[in-house]
Amino acid sequence: MGLFDKFGKLAAERASLCGTQIHPFGIRIDEMYSPTEGCIEGQRVILAGTNNYLGLTFDPASIKAAQRSLALEGTGTTGSRMANGSYAGHSALEEELVDFLGRSSVIVFSTGYVANLAVIGTLAGSREVVLLDADCHASIYDACKLGGAEIIRFRHNDVADLERRMVRLGERAREAIILVEGIYSMLGDQAPLREIVEVKRRLGGYLLVDEAHSFGVLGANGRGLAEELGVDSEVDILLGTFSKSLGAVGGFAACHDAQMDLLRYASRPYIFTASPAPSAIASVRTALAAIKERPELRHQLWSNARRLYQGLAESGYQLGPQASPVIAVMLESPQEGLTVWRALIERGVYVNLVLPPATPGAVTLVRCSVSAAHTPEQIDRIIEAFASLRGAMGQVTAGA
Amino acid sequence: MGLFDKFGKLAAERASLCGTQIHPFGIRIDEMYSPTEGCIEGQRVILAGTNNYLGLTFDPASIKAAQRSLALEGTGTTGSRMANGSYAGHSALEEELVDFLGRSSVIVFSTGYVANLAVIGTLAGSREVVLLDADCHASIYDACKLGGAEIIRFRHNDVADLERRMVRLGERAREAIILVEGIYSMLGDQAPLREIVEVKRRLGGYLLVDEAHSFGVLGANGRGLAEELGVDSEVDILLGTFSKSLGAVGGFAACHDAQMDLLRYASRPYIFTASPAPSAIASVRTALAAIKERPELRHQLWSNARRLYQGLAESGYQLGPQASPVIAVMLESPQEGLTVWRALIERGVYVNLVLPPATPGAVTLVRCSVSAAHTPEQIDRIIEAFASLRGAMGQVTAGA
Repeated sequence: MGLFDKFGKLAAERASLCGTQIHPFGIRIDEMYSPTEGCIEGQRVILAGTNNYLGLTFDPASIKAAQRSLALEGTGTTGSRMANGSYAGHSALEEELVDFLGRSSVIVFSTGYVANLAVIGTLAGSREVVLLDADCHASIYDACKLGGAEIIRFRHNDVADLERRMVRLGERAREAIILVEGIYSMLGDQAPLREIVEVKRRLGGYLLVDEAHSFGVLGANGRGLAEELGVDSEVDILLGTFSKSLGAVGGFAACHDAQMDLLRYASRPYIFTASPAPSAIASVRTALAAIKERPELRHQLWSNARRLYQGLAESGYQLGPQASPVIAVMLESPQEGLTVWRALIERGVYVNLVLPPATPGAVTLVRCSVSAAHTPEQIDRIIEAFASLRGAMGQVTAGA
Repeated sequence: MGLFDKFGKLAAERASLCGTQIHPFGIRIDEMYSPTEGCIEGQRVILAGTNNYLGLTFDPASIKAAQRSLALEGTGTTGSRMANGSYAGHSALEEELVDFLGRSSVIVFSTGYVANLAVIGTLAGSREVVLLDADCHASIYDACKLGGAEIIRFRHNDVADLERRMVRLGERAREAIILVEGIYSMLGDQAPLREIVEVKRRLGGYLLVDEAHSFGVLGANGRGLAEELGVDSEVDILLGTFSKSLGAVGGFAACHDAQMDLLRYASRPYIFTASPAPSAIASVRTALAAIKERPELRHQLWSNARRLYQGLAESGYQLGPQASPVIAVMLESPQEGLTVWRALIERGVYVNLVLPPATPGAVTLVRCSVSAAHTPEQIDRIIEAFASLRGAMGQVTAGA
């Protein structure tokens, strides 16, 4: 038996679905032309499958800040935050996030996945119980597994189900950790945070919200869903990433309680990971300033999101429950998903194909992500590409 | 009860040890002057506590490559490798590592911690058994925990103990995963890889070697300990990091079996992490070329390492078992460690203080890391700073 034999089934499934043609898992972008255009397999495509919500990856100020940091601070810290890996920029970014988010403590991590592992995996140990929205991101599940907590899943966005399960916990509910997301990555829908906060007020518990897809996207100041819904003060820990609206790599956690700083001494993924490159920190600080100073980016993002959502709905596609920068187009089968995905590439549009079991309800999704940097013309071209695939036979004409 | 109450004991321990003075956990470097000098608490110090083994963080070619990538490719990919996060540079780096390491497959990850989680955590599932050197890095322990494998620790570098435990496993030994490191991060000693390979030949199993601290440091070509000891072909998976000799952030796994590529479809930390920033990849590719083209860096590193090891030994300090770029100075107690650490800062030398339980045998360590970029004069100043602390009372005169 070989080391990789246990993945044989996976390989066979992939081969049977994709054959030898271009396949959607492990796509390579050979050249980037802008935040919204690149070259895939020799073809110029509109990128509608990234998380570049504000289009800041090519922001001249962010690029310049990163370039300057490289010259002054070098290519990396070669150490963890606990050893030699905290530079002035790491602390400054934490302070700027404290200000921006109106929190008492912020900790910066090297990736968003590591942020969730470091915070949730350390808080949710074997004595803890976690109430988890069933659609939460893989990093949250992995964090709970690493920590060893008891995991209780509640039905996606079903507050009554959450409440029932908390009531069943009795006194333990008071110390339970409730985990939800600002915008869910698969269907683009938002957590009913106000109602969840009501449950928390009645039954206790700590509320952790992963705002990975909503930070910089929702709220009057771009702080996320909790700000949008006016429940910022009720969120015990806000988790976020630098690899979406902020256009770099990294993650953070923010808390009203300054005691969160203790995690720096207890959290193994934090202690044992090299700190973010100073240049990444420099570009994130500049992007954060853009979120503060340029609310028009957020407005443009939402204008584009609504335009695409409406256009796809009018073309007859079944979509996720609400207009969102993440727009899920639901298809009949993995084979149909692959056909649509390939036809879109041929028409110059790159989106993500997401197959079961990674999707809620085992549906096949073609997922579009919108950017503030998309022009209305690009949005219309995406709609046209989708519309051209609609035919008489079933929802989509294969190979149309 | 509060969310962070369970860390109260930790906070109290830290406060009782460190008081309100400058403390060694969460040190901040306010300014970097070079790979080997920076400003801590207003004081110019020689950095002898980083993992910048080849001093490449300030290599002009690496900096230039990263700056150029920022202009051409932007500040981040805003996606995972599986979605839109593979750029031409990610693939090119994987191919260059395939060539450099003489392997069939290489996968690049966003951090070294994530590389271990992604590879070990996915291979070592609940049916697997892992034989783990007791001194292995936290990321390896966490990876085994995440995967759910049965963990059997053997005594550090004790091949007889490894063999005994494998024999006890009977037939299961044939499929067991043996996990060791090239250079151990605490004491700087090396795994007895030849003898471990002998055990593997007799009893079976798969051998995974984390060359985080030995890649670019050991071997005729800098491939690591397995190359140094002529057992490269017997190592099933070589794991490495970009945040030490290569001076950036990220990690990789390399395998003789092209089937390792299947991990891309099975490994959650890989699938659900944003890919490394293109600029990080650009600097790593340039640093890898430097490892190939400038063996003198490696020779200078070892010359410095031997000079420091010998100088500290002659000053009467008890050191790790062999000269190494990681030199552990063993002290009597955490209090003595802290005294020495602070006195060294005052004398312009920054090293790492490592306290039990993070250390082998619950010893207190002041750990020095050597760089090729250290001048012999800097090495001598480090030795002098240590030597000045030696006194008549005990091993070290507190506050000397």
